[in-house]
Amino acid sequence: MMNADHPAIVLVSGGMDSCVTAAVAARAHTSLAFLHANYGQRTEARELTAFHAIAQHFGVTRTLVVPMNHLAAIGGSSLTDHTIPVTPADLQATGIPTSYVPFRNANILAVAVSWAEVIGARTIYIGAVEEDSSGYPDCRRAFFDAYNAMVTTGTKPGSGIAIQTPLLSMSKAEIVKRGTELHAPLALTWSCYQAEDEACGVCDSCALRLRGFQRAGIPDPIRYRIRPEYSH
Amino acid sequence: MMNADHPAIVLVSGGMDSCVTAAVAARAHTSLAFLHANYGQRTEARELTAFHAIAQHFGVTRTLVVPMNHLAAIGGSSLTDHTIPVTPADLQATGIPTSYVPFRNANILAVAVSWAEVIGARTIYIGAVEEDSSGYPDCRRAFFDAYNAMVTTGTKPGSGIAIQTPLLSMSKAEIVKRGTELHAPLALTWSCYQAEDEACGVCDSCALRLRGFQRAGIPDPIRYRIRPEYSH
Repeated sequence: MMNADHPAIVLVSGGMDSCVTAAVAARAHTSLAFLHANYGQRTEARELTAFHAIAQHFGVTRTLVVPMNHLAAIGGSSLTDHTIPVTPADLQATGIPTSYVPFRNANILAVAVSWAEVIGARTIYIGAVEEDSSGYPDCRRAFFDAYNAMVTTGTKPGSGIAIQTPLLSMSKAEIVKRGTELHAPLALTWSCYQAEDEACGVCDSCALRLRGFQRAGIPDPIRYRIRPEYSH
Repeated sequence: MMNADHPAIVLVSGGMDSCVTAAVAARAHTSLAFLHANYGQRTEARELTAFHAIAQHFGVTRTLVVPMNHLAAIGGSSLTDHTIPVTPADLQATGIPTSYVPFRNANILAVAVSWAEVIGARTIYIGAVEEDSSGYPDCRRAFFDAYNAMVTTGTKPGSGIAIQTPLLSMSKAEIVKRGTELHAPLALTWSCYQAEDEACGVCDSCALRLRGFQRAGIPDPIRYRIRPEYSH
């Protein structure tokens, strides 16, 4: 079903999930706008390169790159605070990984909603995944439902803006399969939380990605420093 | 009732409402943290000066100034887009003033919630006023109620973070009176949307402020370029 009247915004981090989400959005909308947030994460430059490559692949010229360095200034995450180590499948006492940036999705979605109001977009896609999100509170369906209710009350009457989470209940293997079916450019994506040259293969994010490809029975097209048997 | 266990965050723009809100928060909490957002508004430098003066008055040393220039880049408001004129009591066809920055409060509150998670704050004060907000959608009680529900789902379990809006149902005259009772430093505040040297006296924000002082029967301690009979 194409929606030619309103552009749709896709949050594109440069990772696999957002790339597959963009492919889903491209099926439903003739006009896409890509939003990327830099928030002082370790692999910021590499993710931005992936973002631009994915935008080019989809022919998207309406892009917005938002510096959100205050999320790094606020700290509290191993993604942005380089004194906190990123370890494999690293968990805090709360069961939430140290890579959790507090309330990150709420911050990025707020920017997306502001942009949507100005460009007349009604749909905002985010590639959040509940199962693989390791307990990040702002990756759960209850959060997105509450977010949508808040957007309805906080935007101009009739704005009709809603967040869509097409991957929310998928496993990483299902995402790999869906992305492959849709010819999403997975080779252009970047998932590693630690390195920028070759993916480390051992951080939380690499581990989840590799397991997804393994279970899908599809080789991962990117290169790893530590190359598990099921990668390319 | 003092709450010594957790610091409270106050969103301090530098205007009168946030100054009175800070005075309300200072009564309830022994430790305050002040958050200020620069979002490319015309009077950014003047507001920041007011912010620091108010922080000094309250003895608050834990301050965070957040550059949110992306809100200006996104545009859509006369506050940040200098090609859109600010006119007295200026309204769009929708009844929403051109000074409306789409979803501004949601953006700033998201930063505040991230910071609250990191510093262990449970209360975030914002000086939003429903009556005088000229129809900004993100100044209504329904918005803050929905925002709090979203925060509960999107933060660590037990974070207990909630937004407080002590001025929400007050008139500007009531705010002037309350601020005066609490000895809030209103002379240090800045409300004008247009000028940075002397308040213009004619923009939406000046007009609301001056009417508030007039109705409260209290002289406004700041100076105006166009000096109505009820100002200082």
